[in-house]
Amino acid sequence: MLVGSTDLPPGMTMRQAARKAVVANVSDLAAKGARPYVGLVALGLPATLTRRDVLEIAGGLSAGAKEYRFPIVGGDTNESKDLVISIALFGLIDERKMILRSGAKVGDLVAVTGEFGSSSTGLRAVLDRKVRPEKLPRELAEALYRPAAELDVGLRLASAGAITASIDSSDGLAWSLHELSMMSNVGIKVEAVPISKAAWRFAARHGYDATNLALYGGEEYHLIVTVKPTLLRIAQKAARGRLKAIGVVTKRSEGIRLATKGGDIKIRMKGWEHFRH
Amino acid sequence: MLVGSTDLPPGMTMRQAARKAVVANVSDLAAKGARPYVGLVALGLPATLTRRDVLEIAGGLSAGAKEYRFPIVGGDTNESKDLVISIALFGLIDERKMILRSGAKVGDLVAVTGEFGSSSTGLRAVLDRKVRPEKLPRELAEALYRPAAELDVGLRLASAGAITASIDSSDGLAWSLHELSMMSNVGIKVEAVPISKAAWRFAARHGYDATNLALYGGEEYHLIVTVKPTLLRIAQKAARGRLKAIGVVTKRSEGIRLATKGGDIKIRMKGWEHFRH
Repeated sequence: MLVGSTDLPPGMTMRQAARKAVVANVSDLAAKGARPYVGLVALGLPATLTRRDVLEIAGGLSAGAKEYRFPIVGGDTNESKDLVISIALFGLIDERKMILRSGAKVGDLVAVTGEFGSSSTGLRAVLDRKVRPEKLPRELAEALYRPAAELDVGLRLASAGAITASIDSSDGLAWSLHELSMMSNVGIKVEAVPISKAAWRFAARHGYDATNLALYGGEEYHLIVTVKPTLLRIAQKAARGRLKAIGVVTKRSEGIRLATKGGDIKIRMKGWEHFRH
Repeated sequence: MLVGSTDLPPGMTMRQAARKAVVANVSDLAAKGARPYVGLVALGLPATLTRRDVLEIAGGLSAGAKEYRFPIVGGDTNESKDLVISIALFGLIDERKMILRSGAKVGDLVAVTGEFGSSSTGLRAVLDRKVRPEKLPRELAEALYRPAAELDVGLRLASAGAITASIDSSDGLAWSLHELSMMSNVGIKVEAVPISKAAWRFAARHGYDATNLALYGGEEYHLIVTVKPTLLRIAQKAARGRLKAIGVVTKRSEGIRLATKGGDIKIRMKGWEHFRH
């Protein structure tokens, strides 16, 4: 469910918002290795929307559905005070290949399908009015306004059978690592936070802490997976190079930690909601 | 999608609202003859709600799901300005037995599984402040605050194979007849509007037009079906007596009409939204 008053960054068009609502749903299926099958869309539309706004929403939904190859087969429309785009997306998967959040084992590697911080750095910058949305560096703007779900990578990883657990990073890298660790009853040690170059550069220039933004930002749709060390190559091949090890699975008692020059520090369980306020 | 600012009659509790959101979904499946399989619920919750409100919503959703025998397997929660309860309900049906809106044929009988007007008369009365919600006659209050979906009747009608087309009456009797006629490319002549006694009595006492309320009210969850005259008995038996013929299917060119002492009159395509303003 995407809600206008809380989920729309400054500068996001109605078309982008609707497409992003699709992406968020697809990303959950991608993490399981499931292929989108049919979607239902319920809209709550404020009376203040124009005809053009509504057409933009329809266009964004259609574009997202086309991009991830599923039909929107039904839904509902209503008047509401807040803009609401509520999507239910059903996917199909061979039950034996479904990747859960609960399968990580001590000794597995933790790997990610992308770098973090572009979306959250972009969001922070436009919320702080450091830069107008249209002046954001291209990579940050893409991450914030046109994120992509890692569907093909998720499908290939599930098919290859090389992954022990998986989650998408929509609630933020830190939050998702905690979620994974709780569901699998393990700890995680991250050797280095995978920060996107664009986020790093922009953060350095504007005095932001890129590591914090990458860890606690959220609204990015990468996959975080665990994989047996002996199968890392196979998984990386399945992911066509889009898989980078960032840490290891440890015992639950060791918690969620990040290695730094000064020794390990705790990664807290906070996500983008906390970050925004 | 149930929206607080537009879909909540005065006097409706959060628990009733959540249960009604379930009923509205189940009713759509009932019209097809499909059995609920799994539900997803996305909530938009205003910051002003109390803990008790949220527990009531959860209780109403659970009660509805239990009543119609399906599990709620997932969903989402968000903050929003308006209360939003968005349900996606998936059902299963033997494809050969699915009843569509498009199967009505000239000469079929039109039949309904209940009487109309209780919900709309109750709503009209509390909106007009003719009576406080807690003082509504029991039958009107039940229809308004605790409507039921005709799931068992719908399932039995589909199993019996005696029905040619079906729609639920949630948008109002008149609106749904028009919808059915458009989808089947036929006309419909209603011999008499099936008005509930309680609505009739209350309307007479308070100067309302019961026929109008029953035709154009809405938010009632009966089924409107078409059936070959030779199969009416079988259909009635399948519906365990809850099926009453109210008219016949005619040629499209004859439109949607109601027989009255003064001759036929047109039934307009307007529904409860129109009615409320």
